[in-house]
Amino acid sequence: MSVSILVTLNSNYLHPLKVMLKSLFLQHPETPFAVYLLHSSIRPEELAELNRYIGGHGHELFAIRVESGYFAEAPVVKHYSKEMYYRILAFRFLPPELDKILYLDPDLLILNDIRPLYETELGGHLFAAAYHDRIPLTELNRLRLKAQELPAYYNSGVLLMNLRRQREAVREEEIFAYVKENKKRLILPDQDVLNALYSTSIRDLDEVRYNYDARFYRYYKLASGGKVDMDFVVRQTAILHFCGKRKPWLKNYSGPFHSLYKHYEKLAVPD
Amino acid sequence: MSVSILVTLNSNYLHPLKVMLKSLFLQHPETPFAVYLLHSSIRPEELAELNRYIGGHGHELFAIRVESGYFAEAPVVKHYSKEMYYRILAFRFLPPELDKILYLDPDLLILNDIRPLYETELGGHLFAAAYHDRIPLTELNRLRLKAQELPAYYNSGVLLMNLRRQREAVREEEIFAYVKENKKRLILPDQDVLNALYSTSIRDLDEVRYNYDARFYRYYKLASGGKVDMDFVVRQTAILHFCGKRKPWLKNYSGPFHSLYKHYEKLAVPD
Repeated sequence: MSVSILVTLNSNYLHPLKVMLKSLFLQHPETPFAVYLLHSSIRPEELAELNRYIGGHGHELFAIRVESGYFAEAPVVKHYSKEMYYRILAFRFLPPELDKILYLDPDLLILNDIRPLYETELGGHLFAAAYHDRIPLTELNRLRLKAQELPAYYNSGVLLMNLRRQREAVREEEIFAYVKENKKRLILPDQDVLNALYSTSIRDLDEVRYNYDARFYRYYKLASGGKVDMDFVVRQTAILHFCGKRKPWLKNYSGPFHSLYKHYEKLAVPD
Repeated sequence: MSVSILVTLNSNYLHPLKVMLKSLFLQHPETPFAVYLLHSSIRPEELAELNRYIGGHGHELFAIRVESGYFAEAPVVKHYSKEMYYRILAFRFLPPELDKILYLDPDLLILNDIRPLYETELGGHLFAAAYHDRIPLTELNRLRLKAQELPAYYNSGVLLMNLRRQREAVREEEIFAYVKENKKRLILPDQDVLNALYSTSIRDLDEVRYNYDARFYRYYKLASGGKVDMDFVVRQTAILHFCGKRKPWLKNYSGPFHSLYKHYEKLAVPD
């Protein structure tokens, strides 16, 4: 059975997207993937190249261009474009027969089977996501959004989406109203909106398995009493997330997963 | 054309051997390998398992058992067994029609094509090897072997062997005499013998390409003005060597190539 993947990005992220997809395809040699790309500015020749890449691996690309007239009425935040809404309102652009989809950021590596995640029972939940549980981050996030008294702060880089339920329950106007009111306080707008409006409708994912923050190797290892060591990550973690500003495809990155990232990057984009 | 590989080890290194071979096979999908294993104590069931492993990848294992009567007259050094001689005297046990072979330590990862190394013209040289060029190490080595005033100190973990020339020029008695005389000063006996007796007959290999010491990522990067960064290693270095006591298949290892090692280890030995 085919697995549906959603990505939303611009040309700057086509390179890491290929690396992420390469790792995804390699981990699932028997699974056909349907990759939906929601975008507004990727050039036709870039799409053709991506289509060849994905097709060459035996999978399918569905590129969906969101026309500029869309979200005319939506408020914008600082330097963020209206693309900030694509993730949370993706259900409006995806085929109506699609019941669920797995959204993936391009700054991920897939290290193990994601099908147990894809098969997670969503019930009435709108999303499944991992709560990033390091105290200092959480405190920071709570402070930033203190009015809402969030029960958790979910990372929006890996989102299993219950499209059927979203079509019933997610109200565009509510999102726009929230953004308008909180404009000045939003830092990562889509993630902030997700948490502020929907955190009680999100099913928890195990972050160590499905959204492991690559910056915190020592933290995970210590916090688990040594259990979550390099062996564990390489054999059990399905999704490794290169969160934060420093990215492994840019110069001067360093970290315990640097060599592993470069390995997949070489497989994805040989000389 | 088939490539001949030599390994000499005991049961304790069968696990890293599989990882090393996995990386070798993956880098050369079109090349058939003949793997010669020189040993004295590996059990038949372990050999059968290794044979299945190598055969399952489409390559051939030739296990050569050195009987205990051999080297009866050879001196021993500290806690080292007579297996210390297998590497330097391998030509005595290998098929006479074999003209050259590439010796590889089990604590290596093969990251890129080794055929340019294998095709290196040896001329009248007995070996090709990489000189490990970090000042502090060199000083240490010079001190240890100061009487010989070595022109270089070669690492014996990667050795291209000119078997034809060795059959003519390497004299067992000379080696035994040297070991007897220098017993107390030898630290890594086979490497010390190689350097003391044959360093003028060794052809230089580029260590960054063919014997990159995984402990010195920062050193190589700095010394090259940034050129030998992670991208370079992953795309250009053919042989990564986990030198020293701390090994990536043991607990509590850490280092920039830890995740990459664990990746190949998982491919070699799945759960």
